[in-house]
Amino acid sequence: MGRRARAAAADLAVRTRAEKDATLHAMADALEASSAGIIERNAADVERARQNGTSEAIVDRLRLDDARIAGMAGGLRQVAGLPDPVGEVLRGYTLPNGLQVTQRRVPMGVVGIIYEARPNVTADAAGLALKSGNAVLLKGSSSAAASNEAVVDVLAAAVASAGLPRDAVQLVPGGHDEAKQLMRARGLVDVLIPRGGAGLIRSVVEESTVPVIETGVGNCHVYVDADADLEKALAIVLNAKVQRPSVCNAAETLLVHSAVAGEFLPAALGALRAEGVTVHGDDRVRAYDDAVVPATDDDWAAEYLSLDLAAAVVDSLDDAVAHIRRWGSGHTEAIVTRSLPASQRFAATTDSAAVMVNASTRFTDGEQFGFGAEIGISTQKLHARGPMGLPELTTTTYVVTGDGHVRG
Amino acid sequence: MGRRARAAAADLAVRTRAEKDATLHAMADALEASSAGIIERNAADVERARQNGTSEAIVDRLRLDDARIAGMAGGLRQVAGLPDPVGEVLRGYTLPNGLQVTQRRVPMGVVGIIYEARPNVTADAAGLALKSGNAVLLKGSSSAAASNEAVVDVLAAAVASAGLPRDAVQLVPGGHDEAKQLMRARGLVDVLIPRGGAGLIRSVVEESTVPVIETGVGNCHVYVDADADLEKALAIVLNAKVQRPSVCNAAETLLVHSAVAGEFLPAALGALRAEGVTVHGDDRVRAYDDAVVPATDDDWAAEYLSLDLAAAVVDSLDDAVAHIRRWGSGHTEAIVTRSLPASQRFAATTDSAAVMVNASTRFTDGEQFGFGAEIGISTQKLHARGPMGLPELTTTTYVVTGDGHVRG
Repeated sequence: MGRRARAAAADLAVRTRAEKDATLHAMADALEASSAGIIERNAADVERARQNGTSEAIVDRLRLDDARIAGMAGGLRQVAGLPDPVGEVLRGYTLPNGLQVTQRRVPMGVVGIIYEARPNVTADAAGLALKSGNAVLLKGSSSAAASNEAVVDVLAAAVASAGLPRDAVQLVPGGHDEAKQLMRARGLVDVLIPRGGAGLIRSVVEESTVPVIETGVGNCHVYVDADADLEKALAIVLNAKVQRPSVCNAAETLLVHSAVAGEFLPAALGALRAEGVTVHGDDRVRAYDDAVVPATDDDWAAEYLSLDLAAAVVDSLDDAVAHIRRWGSGHTEAIVTRSLPASQRFAATTDSAAVMVNASTRFTDGEQFGFGAEIGISTQKLHARGPMGLPELTTTTYVVTGDGHVRG
Repeated sequence: MGRRARAAAADLAVRTRAEKDATLHAMADALEASSAGIIERNAADVERARQNGTSEAIVDRLRLDDARIAGMAGGLRQVAGLPDPVGEVLRGYTLPNGLQVTQRRVPMGVVGIIYEARPNVTADAAGLALKSGNAVLLKGSSSAAASNEAVVDVLAAAVASAGLPRDAVQLVPGGHDEAKQLMRARGLVDVLIPRGGAGLIRSVVEESTVPVIETGVGNCHVYVDADADLEKALAIVLNAKVQRPSVCNAAETLLVHSAVAGEFLPAALGALRAEGVTVHGDDRVRAYDDAVVPATDDDWAAEYLSLDLAAAVVDSLDDAVAHIRRWGSGHTEAIVTRSLPASQRFAATTDSAAVMVNASTRFTDGEQFGFGAEIGISTQKLHARGPMGLPELTTTTYVVTGDGHVRG
């Protein structure tokens, strides 16, 4: 499959935007036209998940219906509307000896995606890979095997019918052994992007010899500075924690400067409790509210993904930053302050993919950033950091043009 | 050491260009002032290498003298003269909701370098890391242990005397076990750059859980097209092969279009022989010259790094590209042609870090590209591809500024 993907990638690399966009529309149309068949095959996965005692929340994420398939099709059409990153000239200059140097965006080649349950990722990842000129090897979870197969069958046939190589979109069958083969396919796979929980991402990073872009683990902090507008601080804390607690850009820890803790915390703890949030606090936080449970080191490290929030009082911005550098995952940290120097120092020292100044952590998102589509949020520093759009699925090449130049 | 490097990195990240440049000058001055002591400690490595029967070529690479130490100091002063990549704003825009997004270059944090024999790499890597705001963990080969220790002692003391953290430059002692610890130091080391032979690079890639940038393996091709200016082609082939055969951007394989093979090869094979080159050819090449030895698959795959050259006749540009895609290492490929479409197709389909059109492969080099300094040449597609200068030692962060923005 890797070799077939490489061959497809060589073909895709020289296709025009018009060809790729027409293919994306064909893929979208085919999904909608095949909706009934896909839903039928999805029903087998749903049935099996129920028999295995899977929670209804997970079963719901697995389920496909007409609306969700229309959503997948809409996503593909949206990607067709985005600019093509391939061919963009990033740098260009002429050297003293007359050599003309240009650095251009080109596709990665073969992109591998390892992901959990939701079958809509199958269509999203296939569309983003194709638009950026890459062949994709998709390794979904076995719990969604029938659904993913149904979707990929439809997409690959649509790709072929549009005149592009069918092997541009392939589903890797099997379980962990096959996933491991994908992780070891150096020379065939150019980059691997795991999408899922912390466990999945850690195992891909540990086992892979193919370069990996880590995504998504978010232990995000909100720091309420001594100079904060406390009304805005409360709105930001509540939004960051409760608007959608199950995602990586939700806040997991609240840090409050001691100068404003007495004014801020009683109201904030009450408002959080009213929203159903359990606060895990240090002794200084607990002094304000009996309902706060004691925090341990596990709480500072936790990506709860639930209506839980760790909270501590700190004596300075630097103490807040030290806490974040020690316990954070490098995803997103927010500061609420009216002080320009405080906002500058926080941004320069937290060492995370994104820093929000007087804004909710929930804004770290490709859609919110205006990328139009997102393949994931990188929490590593190599290649891409933060929300990744189409350009992050490309690499570059130097083209140097001379007139018989040799080196002296 | 990793934890100390992280602490140093946090300090370095907020230093100004003026502070870093003053430190680089202090490092250069200290190297020259300590020349005698460094040479004395280097003599122990040289003596040991001789006793171990090391070849004189390797011993020579190991040896330090006043001129070489002055060269290292000169390199540090040159880096001080380069622009600081940290703080560069790569993108910036305001979203419809008023949020101001900027993407800025920031240091990686802690950079690990694993390298072979030459002790001058110690100073080069330390200077580039410091200028880009990174702490560096240097793991040199045990054969240069005393020399590297001497150089790092001087550099770290100079860093401290200039008021920057001494732990910004640290030498990892020991052998393979310690190198392996470096490769497994996830969370402490942000990126690992191996510099050396193919064996070293492969072992780092296989064993490392820290993100790696692969460097330097070059199986570079020169393709002489049907439309080539044959005089320029000959000059380029000779330059690419013989000007410095031991380096990664030297040519290892010559591919000649059959339409010009009869005119080009007899003269080219004679000229290569006159330069002492052994040509390993396919049957069609051997038909032109009895001195050509038969090529096997090993020759197509070889990075000779010597006066050897594999050679084949191909019937089309696409056949040349297919050969390169099968056997190449993705470093640099050259095409010699007067045809614009041929040059375009070659550049679009070879899938290498650099394509030279009517120029020698020897130009793929940070110095030649005008970068001022080079930490290595990346042959992978993630993060950096081709010669890497200071910007490639940085990552980015998004700073998003609002006025109490929450997500709806």
